[in-house]
Amino acid sequence: MARIVMKFGGTSVADIERIRKVAERVKAQADQGDEVAVAVSAMAGETDRLVAKVDQVGQLYDLREYDVVVSSGEQVSVGLLAIALQDLGVAARSWLGWQIPVRTDSAHGSARIEQIEIDEIVRRFAEGQVAVVAGFQGLDPQDRITTLGRGGSDTSAVALAAALGADRCDIYTDVDGVYTSDPRIVTRARKLERVTYEEMLEMASQGAKVLQTRSVEMAMKHRVRVQVRSSFQDGPGTLVVDEDEIVEQAVVSGIAYSRDEAKITLLKVPDRPGVAAKIFGPLADAAINVDMIVQNVSPEGDQTDLTFTVGKADLDRAVQVIKEKCTDLGYADILADANVVKVSVIGVGMRSHAGVAQQMFNALADKGINIQVISTSEIKVSVLIAEDYTELALRSLHTAYGLDAD
Amino acid sequence: MARIVMKFGGTSVADIERIRKVAERVKAQADQGDEVAVAVSAMAGETDRLVAKVDQVGQLYDLREYDVVVSSGEQVSVGLLAIALQDLGVAARSWLGWQIPVRTDSAHGSARIEQIEIDEIVRRFAEGQVAVVAGFQGLDPQDRITTLGRGGSDTSAVALAAALGADRCDIYTDVDGVYTSDPRIVTRARKLERVTYEEMLEMASQGAKVLQTRSVEMAMKHRVRVQVRSSFQDGPGTLVVDEDEIVEQAVVSGIAYSRDEAKITLLKVPDRPGVAAKIFGPLADAAINVDMIVQNVSPEGDQTDLTFTVGKADLDRAVQVIKEKCTDLGYADILADANVVKVSVIGVGMRSHAGVAQQMFNALADKGINIQVISTSEIKVSVLIAEDYTELALRSLHTAYGLDAD
Repeated sequence: MARIVMKFGGTSVADIERIRKVAERVKAQADQGDEVAVAVSAMAGETDRLVAKVDQVGQLYDLREYDVVVSSGEQVSVGLLAIALQDLGVAARSWLGWQIPVRTDSAHGSARIEQIEIDEIVRRFAEGQVAVVAGFQGLDPQDRITTLGRGGSDTSAVALAAALGADRCDIYTDVDGVYTSDPRIVTRARKLERVTYEEMLEMASQGAKVLQTRSVEMAMKHRVRVQVRSSFQDGPGTLVVDEDEIVEQAVVSGIAYSRDEAKITLLKVPDRPGVAAKIFGPLADAAINVDMIVQNVSPEGDQTDLTFTVGKADLDRAVQVIKEKCTDLGYADILADANVVKVSVIGVGMRSHAGVAQQMFNALADKGINIQVISTSEIKVSVLIAEDYTELALRSLHTAYGLDAD
Repeated sequence: MARIVMKFGGTSVADIERIRKVAERVKAQADQGDEVAVAVSAMAGETDRLVAKVDQVGQLYDLREYDVVVSSGEQVSVGLLAIALQDLGVAARSWLGWQIPVRTDSAHGSARIEQIEIDEIVRRFAEGQVAVVAGFQGLDPQDRITTLGRGGSDTSAVALAAALGADRCDIYTDVDGVYTSDPRIVTRARKLERVTYEEMLEMASQGAKVLQTRSVEMAMKHRVRVQVRSSFQDGPGTLVVDEDEIVEQAVVSGIAYSRDEAKITLLKVPDRPGVAAKIFGPLADAAINVDMIVQNVSPEGDQTDLTFTVGKADLDRAVQVIKEKCTDLGYADILADANVVKVSVIGVGMRSHAGVAQQMFNALADKGINIQVISTSEIKVSVLIAEDYTELALRSLHTAYGLDAD
């Protein structure tokens, strides 16, 4: 007997037929004698529909009331799934965030889970009852409903698994696992049997939209074994686990990419202390995240070119901020380029292997792909290249690191 | 300064534009310095949509889960109304049934309110905050969400007014008050300035769909002054009050009718003790309500004709029950007639005035309308007539009792 948390997202419960299919999956798990808690999102499209209503009704809205409205989506799906389970003869009840309760802070709209009181759910496990838990929602210290922000249901599931000391947290999604690269581009991409938390975290933040970054952080912190698997097919998915659990670690586990980046270059910036603060301070004040930064070696010693990336959605705003706030800086020109992509090579194995970055640069050079910006971390090398080369770069790197399926 | 409960039904909050209009009305009330609580239904159509989902997902569903799903409709509307109020600069917060809490019994789907804890709402009145309360929902002793059954928001509003000791409970609806008869039929019907609880109760149960019967019972029990008024127009509506508050009481206040009745006649039933029990017992077992009953005087002393009415929706089932369960009774034939209408003359004044029924019979006889069944109560005389005569009967009686507008 195991204790399992299953999580189903909005597309998995998009209509009545799919809710029934989810109920069958949950029944199959419970029929194995496992203790089962199911975390559920709102039916696909519902949250958007509710947010649109809120946007229409008021300008400066109270996020506490926003949370009241949007949390109703999960309330519907847990009730329906509990009924579908009962219809299959499975003892089940729904649990809303406030009923458990899932205690959060008061950051309405993007609350953080602080504690989950699991005693009653565990007591009912012993009676053979399946717990159907509303994802995405909690209760703050003032007993107001909170929501965790978009994709919060993944976090709900992992936090529930942590609180329950679950053997595994299965995240059912529309892909059947984590791949070495995006299979829509790299046809020879392979499904990974296992991946480490650290790698998953890099992949999530590099655009692989399989798991929410926050949920991976939480899984890593509490050592929750997470499995990414398909809602629509049987068979095992990818296990996200501690490094210790991975026997034969490849140097590189995956090639990720993100089209959400845009590049800004300031030409002929004075090369003296305090300049970076003058540029990045105003951007931070405007809540614009800067990712990669590179400063060219000064050719003449007193001026340099500064390049950095921001989110594509922030590009226009970032240029405007710099033009307005950095007037006394004295740069020659500002160039903005949205036609870039960030490609990352990820693997915990590179900690102990030299030459991974060099291999990447060689592979890209072989195809005539120019590298615009480079950044590295302990388990990742990222480069910014022209967007037109995305597919070519991914396929070349996938082959170069020996990741291609047979 | 007064303490006022305002109630808005589903059509009043059917879309964002109407929710804004409701917010303006609430603001106008609050701007008078009144303490205001607003009870709100789900947006029109939402509850039906949610019930349809429940019906689709399971056959034998758990009413506790039904309540979880359908109560989400009011959750959306209170959140939106609170935001709309804040957008107008009114301090407001939403209250769900479990937050107040509105304590009910555990009769899920048709729970009864037992107690409403109003301390926190009253404390916030003192801070100038408007309470936006979800109608239709409560919390049972097991801390599960309950709903009060269709039209339960009227009951929520009246119960809240009773708990708050409110000066008035204003029910905003799509009519502007209670009329002496249905104005769509009787063009000379007049809006009543005041009507007693007892009369309103009879009118509600006789088909005047202005207020839910249960809410009137609750208002009567707790002496809550209820005003029925228009969501869409200004001006006073009709006050539903204690008899003491009505200075000049007319003998007859209104002429109501119900098309929901159907007539069953059993011919040549043996006229002996125990026969009625044999017929009405099985009907009661089948949860079929019998309203009017009349037994003809036996012409030959040992056989009689028995006529009674049931809800039109129950007619076929009632006939079937009698045919199956009353085989040993020995009746000659069973006749069913759905083309009937019940017309009622209502007024607390008739307690002290003789001849009201006689006046009714005369007025109908003058127009050649045949009375099929008669039943009376202390403040009501009802007759069953052929449905084709509905309009003629209503207009004739309205004139006969001097109710016509000038």
